[in-house]
Amino acid sequence: MKAGLIGFGKTGKAVASVLLQHEEISLEWVLRRRAILENRSASEYLGVESEDPGVIHSLQHISIGALLDTHPVDVLIDFSSSEGIVGYGQEAASRGVTIISAISHYGEQEVAFLQKLAKRTTVFWSPNITLGVNYLLFAGKFLKKIAPWVDVEVVEEHFKQKQGISGTAIKIAEALDVQISDINSVRAGGIVGRHEVIFGFPYQTVRLIHESISREAFGNGVVFVAQNLEGKPRGLYHFEDLLLPYFVPDGFTNAS
Amino acid sequence: MKAGLIGFGKTGKAVASVLLQHEEISLEWVLRRRAILENRSASEYLGVESEDPGVIHSLQHISIGALLDTHPVDVLIDFSSSEGIVGYGQEAASRGVTIISAISHYGEQEVAFLQKLAKRTTVFWSPNITLGVNYLLFAGKFLKKIAPWVDVEVVEEHFKQKQGISGTAIKIAEALDVQISDINSVRAGGIVGRHEVIFGFPYQTVRLIHESISREAFGNGVVFVAQNLEGKPRGLYHFEDLLLPYFVPDGFTNAS
Amino acid sequence: MKAGLIGFGKTGKAVASVLLQHEEISLEWVLRRRAILENRSASEYLGVESEDPGVIHSLQHISIGALLDTHPVDVLIDFSSSEGIVGYGQEAASRGVTIISAISHYGEQEVAFLQKLAKRTTVFWSPNITLGVNYLLFAGKFLKKIAPWVDVEVVEEHFKQKQGISGTAIKIAEALDVQISDINSVRAGGIVGRHEVIFGFPYQTVRLIHESISREAFGNGVVFVAQNLEGKPRGLYHFEDLLLPYFVPDGFTNAS
Amino acid sequence: MKAGLIGFGKTGKAVASVLLQHEEISLEWVLRRRAILENRSASEYLGVESEDPGVIHSLQHISIGALLDTHPVDVLIDFSSSEGIVGYGQEAASRGVTIISAISHYGEQEVAFLQKLAKRTTVFWSPNITLGVNYLLFAGKFLKKIAPWVDVEVVEEHFKQKQGISGTAIKIAEALDVQISDINSVRAGGIVGRHEVIFGFPYQTVRLIHESISREAFGNGVVFVAQNLEGKPRGLYHFEDLLLPYFVPDGFTNAS
Repeated sequence: MKAGLIGFGKTGKAVASVLLQHEEISLEWVLRRRAILENRSASEYLGVESEDPGVIHSLQHISIGALLDTHPVDVLIDFSSSEGIVGYGQEAASRGVTIISAISHYGEQEVAFLQKLAKRTTVFWSPNITLGVNYLLFAGKFLKKIAPWVDVEVVEEHFKQKQGISGTAIKIAEALDVQISDINSVRAGGIVGRHEVIFGFPYQTVRLIHESISREAFGNGVVFVAQNLEGKPRGLYHFEDLLLPYFVPDGFTNAS
Repeated sequence: MKAGLIGFGKTGKAVASVLLQHEEISLEWVLRRRAILENRSASEYLGVESEDPGVIHSLQHISIGALLDTHPVDVLIDFSSSEGIVGYGQEAASRGVTIISAISHYGEQEVAFLQKLAKRTTVFWSPNITLGVNYLLFAGKFLKKIAPWVDVEVVEEHFKQKQGISGTAIKIAEALDVQISDINSVRAGGIVGRHEVIFGFPYQTVRLIHESISREAFGNGVVFVAQNLEGKPRGLYHFEDLLLPYFVPDGFTNAS
Repeated sequence: MKAGLIGFGKTGKAVASVLLQHEEISLEWVLRRRAILENRSASEYLGVESEDPGVIHSLQHISIGALLDTHPVDVLIDFSSSEGIVGYGQEAASRGVTIISAISHYGEQEVAFLQKLAKRTTVFWSPNITLGVNYLLFAGKFLKKIAPWVDVEVVEEHFKQKQGISGTAIKIAEALDVQISDINSVRAGGIVGRHEVIFGFPYQTVRLIHESISREAFGNGVVFVAQNLEGKPRGLYHFEDLLLPYFVPDGFTNAS
Repeated sequence: MKAGLIGFGKTGKAVASVLLQHEEISLEWVLRRRAILENRSASEYLGVESEDPGVIHSLQHISIGALLDTHPVDVLIDFSSSEGIVGYGQEAASRGVTIISAISHYGEQEVAFLQKLAKRTTVFWSPNITLGVNYLLFAGKFLKKIAPWVDVEVVEEHFKQKQGISGTAIKIAEALDVQISDINSVRAGGIVGRHEVIFGFPYQTVRLIHESISREAFGNGVVFVAQNLEGKPRGLYHFEDLLLPYFVPDGFTNAS
């Protein structure tokens, strides 16, 4: 599978290093706005061994259309900004390239645009593309469905400088009917990121915890998404759509 | 719903106190081997307010058949011992009474007997009938299905005197392909019971934790099972069979 | 050591059951305001085996002075209310009886009274007389002294119905210069009580956690205090005063 | 304060980057065995801004004696190997340079050598020079002194590839009379490092947890040690010796 990466900030770089080292996915190129590092090899810059081309291009000297024509890819991975999709959406969709967007926030306009693109190609969007956080959301919603009356609390911990409530915590709270104002935010030292959901039953407590170690987790999430999207018909997909099929009842349950 | 309880040890008592206070389930009677407390009211003995009959009977003076005839119930809840089923199984099945067994261990013979009974009535068996532990098992197996290559470790904590590895931890380990010998058992002070499953990904960690507060959790588990078994055709059911239906795809996912 | 207990509410009962079972302390009597259970044996009522007298008395039929004269004790343990001290303080002090008060809140007036009593006898006061919580306070303050610039956060968890921020969390926050309004309070299900202090360093995190299992912890705290107060000259003591002597440098450190 | 660093492996580099950015300590030079990176600037190599000289030297072209004479330092920080001390010990001691060794394991011979050097200069050794782990050891030993009968368990978690029981866990176990064979070792994914000590009391549990985020924690530990060693007479010091003085009773306790 050939992939192109849009965006090369801190997270983009971590994602690139994962893709470069993955055997089944070839990172063909990186496209970024700024001209810095242009034409350099991502693997050499990041210090990882790889046989992928992985050349860094800049929008200042090449358009996405030209890039897709000269260096075709199967899937386009977006870690740029919410405006990115406007620039590459049509070009990717018209060529049938699968779009995987990991942008944190989209306005209504961008979501509508995603839906429009989804009529022509396979489109995926997840504001937090790690497997762990999406599993937490999924497993948490499932417990809430089983026991709608359970008390739910969310505690998130991050480094001291992080401003505002974490976006992931907000997403968890929304999924579990917790008031945003009830989220407990801990800010201390260099904590990379920790999300805990507490389900309080009268005589027992269940806790789901996700701890981030490093940004490379986003790269592994991209790999999971890319592999699970393969062969999917066009349409707009979210992470849940990729998790649900794993619930094939037979084989899962051992009941007679 | 009318219920009869077999067994009145520590856990049986805790279950009785939950059932006595539950509005939709009426605890008709308790049946135990020993004659102690015979003919006393369970609610008065346990110090809980209840309008349920809840009279304590002893096998020394009444047979299960006679009890089911004179004080009919819809469901029979078993917290006695692995041999209990032999005594009441036929009598319950022939009268179409639903059987809910919370016995920790059954031999092959008893399991075969359960399957035989399941041809005539609705039979349910769970070696740990709490909602929390069964959710943990279910959610853990699901994550293992999504990411079969993830590292899994189990840590269980109990009070100092507890002998051997916890049965629940063994069940979790078996479900997640963890070697029993790799379970980490902590024994310290008066810890009631804590089970943690650690899923180690390269760049993130997911933890599922279950903490027991008191034995009444088994009572709430029985209520959940009794309510979710209602209307189910005859057959042998496990906890997973009751959890799976909550995964109705539409409504659960918000994907378009 | 002979002890008298004042107060027989939920916590008083748990403390009595610990004292009754402790070999070196004899619970001579319990004194309470109400006449209910008067003249009954505390051990029989609580269902614990004990050779201690442990008779329950009521203030309605006997004064503290008369009780101390007819059934003398070495130490008086107060789990009644903030007003209790006014009734028994002079009587205990004038007889040289050690006072151990576990009252949660005292006004300025009562504290002044404690100080006055401390001129005539040994007086101890701790608003949370468990060993664990006091250790947490002590160890937390110590770390804060070593690293005054560390980020500190407090998370406390209790059962859903608990109103307001936990008094223990407030005490921890005050000791560690954390704003009361920054305490994170989780309210869910039946959590007995959990206090966590998070010390965030740039590249590491230290967590101190205290988990309550049951009220009997207060009884063990009383035993620790009574034993460590023995032989102490008159004066007003707090829990820290009993912990500090354990820091005898030699033997503790293995440095040369 | 002028410092020289011996050793430039993964941890040495992390320590260098902390020292380079610290205002009160100037990293004069780095000395390593291999000639790679020789004469390059550590700050430029590590990509951190610093006004410290921080030149990288190799033992292949300069001796420690010559380096100390031409580029004198107040303190020498050793992150090399257990043999390192043999090479630089005499040279440092004879010039009155303070030695801070962070070597994980020393044989009896090296310890004897340290003691000999300590007669001529200030020598410090800690096998894990982070503030957090040493605090954990200290606070744990203190609790064990207060309650010698408490049940103690140690759980350590590290990345899947880590071989053997963690050295820090062994040190904790030894300090708290826990059998090495009773340490619970979890190996999963990319966990950087987590040590938990569980103190089980009959009715309450205390947990001390240390979580590593990155190797830079060793750098901050070095800074703490260097600053707390200042002005100390010659002798051999351990981390505990630097922590104990923080227990000045007055000011710490608020008892009357």
